[in-house]
Amino acid sequence: MATTALASDILKRYRVTSGGGFKLDRFDPADCCGLDIEKDEAKALLADGVKRLAKLQDRLYAEHQWAVLVVLQGLDAAGKDGVIKHVVSGVNPQGCEVHPFKAPSQLELDHDFLWRAALVLPRRGHIGIFNRSYYEEVLVVRVHKEILEKQGLPPKLITKDIWAERYEDINAFERHLARNGTALIKVFLHVSKKEQQKRLLERIDDPAKQYKFNAGDIVERKLWDAYQQAYEEMVRGTATEYAPWYIAPADNKWFTRLVVSSAIVEKLEEINPQLPTLDEAQMRALQSLRASLAGD
Amino acid sequence: MATTALASDILKRYRVTSGGGFKLDRFDPADCCGLDIEKDEAKALLADGVKRLAKLQDRLYAEHQWAVLVVLQGLDAAGKDGVIKHVVSGVNPQGCEVHPFKAPSQLELDHDFLWRAALVLPRRGHIGIFNRSYYEEVLVVRVHKEILEKQGLPPKLITKDIWAERYEDINAFERHLARNGTALIKVFLHVSKKEQQKRLLERIDDPAKQYKFNAGDIVERKLWDAYQQAYEEMVRGTATEYAPWYIAPADNKWFTRLVVSSAIVEKLEEINPQLPTLDEAQMRALQSLRASLAGD
Repeated sequence: MATTALASDILKRYRVTSGGGFKLDRFDPADCCGLDIEKDEAKALLADGVKRLAKLQDRLYAEHQWAVLVVLQGLDAAGKDGVIKHVVSGVNPQGCEVHPFKAPSQLELDHDFLWRAALVLPRRGHIGIFNRSYYEEVLVVRVHKEILEKQGLPPKLITKDIWAERYEDINAFERHLARNGTALIKVFLHVSKKEQQKRLLERIDDPAKQYKFNAGDIVERKLWDAYQQAYEEMVRGTATEYAPWYIAPADNKWFTRLVVSSAIVEKLEEINPQLPTLDEAQMRALQSLRASLAGD
Repeated sequence: MATTALASDILKRYRVTSGGGFKLDRFDPADCCGLDIEKDEAKALLADGVKRLAKLQDRLYAEHQWAVLVVLQGLDAAGKDGVIKHVVSGVNPQGCEVHPFKAPSQLELDHDFLWRAALVLPRRGHIGIFNRSYYEEVLVVRVHKEILEKQGLPPKLITKDIWAERYEDINAFERHLARNGTALIKVFLHVSKKEQQKRLLERIDDPAKQYKFNAGDIVERKLWDAYQQAYEEMVRGTATEYAPWYIAPADNKWFTRLVVSSAIVEKLEEINPQLPTLDEAQMRALQSLRASLAGD
């Protein structure tokens, strides 16, 4: 088969641009879209995607008009770190920043829940990768309501509408970003319960992976159903034309990575950034400077 | 007369919570609400307001739940700096920050237009004062469309709907802040053309004020009508219950200051911040520590 990234009509199957009626269980975490390929082929396919991404990012940087924000969400061991390592590694780091979001600091809690993400938004010409994001505020905080109560909000603002309000605020934030030149790609890495178990066991059994193991992951795993529901409602509440969700099957790492790299490449191709060109006066000035430089 | 800040029913006359049908020319810049008082009385009145503000801010800081954001907008020489100097001076600077917004830097232009304001939002327990703000993006940028074209936006995003979109984005931003514990007070310092002329002439004639004079102010003054229209449409587009505009008459400085200090005091009284109290277990622990300290 040809070494190209996923074709648009395949990628489209994983994209959700309108949340109404979204059902997570209609997406199969083990789906590979019928691609039955060898490991080497998968590597070549991804390498091609990464190369195209790097070339497009050079043009994005040079044009200096659009920013791209990639939001990665998923349960523990869904493969977020691997996506970053394998998909984004080829990109010039001068135009790309990765921001992991851990438990918020006191200063962060002392602001609105979008604040700490806003601080590190990518500037024009750059790609920003959020490893987790403000979506944690409608995921872990929703599953663990006791966290919400410790975030310092005035109690009267913690109402039954808070999750709907947060979806609304997130949508408005993303629409604002889109209107001001930030293209958004949001990816939910959809891993099965069985595959997560396998990966967490590996982290316990494999000495090279033990540093990644976190006892808290086992606690969170017990809340599997609550998390699945929170993810489903998140997609329902925040999938939009200007900031679609991709439901990336995450049981096969090579396929997850292919979906993410293809989604970024497709968005960059849509932006189609151009190298800046000089007008006639600038061109004359350039040639005059050239003559001066050549003769000095 | 009693030395108290403006009563609620007087303050209400200057508050706009819904923009529909708003007409700037229905507000008189020279209005003093019938108060015909001596300079000393005005000073005492303001001093009382400032004292109440300082006391309330101590409680806001101790409670550590709400933030207060005061946005000051107005033409050159409308009195923004004077309001800050005379109204906010009494407040503990540990819980209060003033942020002036000048022409945006390259890094700021490389982000969405709300970004640089988001960076310096007040944290819980604090009062933030914006001397100008993101509203400049629908004021000076609207009056000078050539500025908009030089802000680095992708050209296809500069549409005829851009001002309506910006109002919408600002409203969503402010609603989000309000939902997360930031109370907003927005003040338009409404000065007359005649009074502005007088103040700018003073800046030219008075050696102690010459450093404040900016030749650009004369250029902007020629665009008086365009600015009045931009302010009017700004209030129409962004006056809301959660983030009202105050149209503060600005031809008499003492009255402007009284309106602003009264608006902040009223909002703080509505928040009614409380000193944190200890529960029984904490109280026992405190008494035990007291015994230990007293006997060491």
